[in-house]
Amino acid sequence: MKKKAIQDQWSELGTMCWGCGRNNEHGLQLKSYWEGDETVATWHPKPYHLAFPGALCGGIIASLIDCHSTNTANSAARRDEEQKSGSDSPKSYVTGSLFVKYLKPTPVDKPVTLRAKVKERKGRKITVSCSLYSEGVEKAQGEVVAIQFSTKNL
Amino acid sequence: MKKKAIQDQWSELGTMCWGCGRNNEHGLQLKSYWEGDETVATWHPKPYHLAFPGALCGGIIASLIDCHSTNTANSAARRDEEQKSGSDSPKSYVTGSLFVKYLKPTPVDKPVTLRAKVKERKGRKITVSCSLYSEGVEKAQGEVVAIQFSTKNL
Repeated sequence: MKKKAIQDQWSELGTMCWGCGRNNEHGLQLKSYWEGDETVATWHPKPYHLAFPGALCGGIIASLIDCHSTNTANSAARRDEEQKSGSDSPKSYVTGSLFVKYLKPTPVDKPVTLRAKVKERKGRKITVSCSLYSEGVEKAQGEVVAIQFSTKNL
Repeated sequence: MKKKAIQDQWSELGTMCWGCGRNNEHGLQLKSYWEGDETVATWHPKPYHLAFPGALCGGIIASLIDCHSTNTANSAARRDEEQKSGSDSPKSYVTGSLFVKYLKPTPVDKPVTLRAKVKERKGRKITVSCSLYSEGVEKAQGEVVAIQFSTKNL
């Protein structure tokens, strides 16, 4: 049976994201999957996702790391809550902060792979570490702190 | 006389960036201008640049902060070098790291304004702090460390 992407498990409200929503035809449509205790996504840049000729744009890399990591946080939280309580109304997490370190230029004409893990869960925060690879070489390292969403944030 | 955007002062090679290149028809086409010792850019989201209904995507915010800040670093460096030596072959800076703290959701249906300043210049690094506003309210804070580009980076 084909595994379902994390992004395809949310309600319709969560499917319009420019970075990863399946119902956003203009977006990047990133799809992330669990593999053991890490999440993995493979994504193919378009030729116009450039920084400069040949290199993938840093903003696109940041967007991929953000979406992959925040989906990882939400999915990990949901999994834990379902195991504990069978709750069907899990809490939602949004990006509180995003850090990206660019190690090397990333080719625009090759697929990239993202790998992320939950690093820490503390109170209302989940910290996720994430790396982006091209042809097996680590090109960027990221860290996202996802924060439990509250109407106080609005 | 209308001021020329920072992004429109680079050679053709620098105009394909997805975030801010004037020759990338699929990109965000951000344009940044000096106002005294800070740089300012105003940008209009498209309706599909969503995180969730009504809110601007965090990846787009990160992309805008990255491009606005790295252009600020390059332009500040060029200005300093021209003043010092009249050099017409200035050094180029690329994003070494990007940090974004998301303070509040940003409306997708309003223009955003970015304001940035050079915070520190040390060796091969220029640190730029940048905030993003919607209707005068600060919605995100960013910091970019731009690093002098070298073929060693390749």
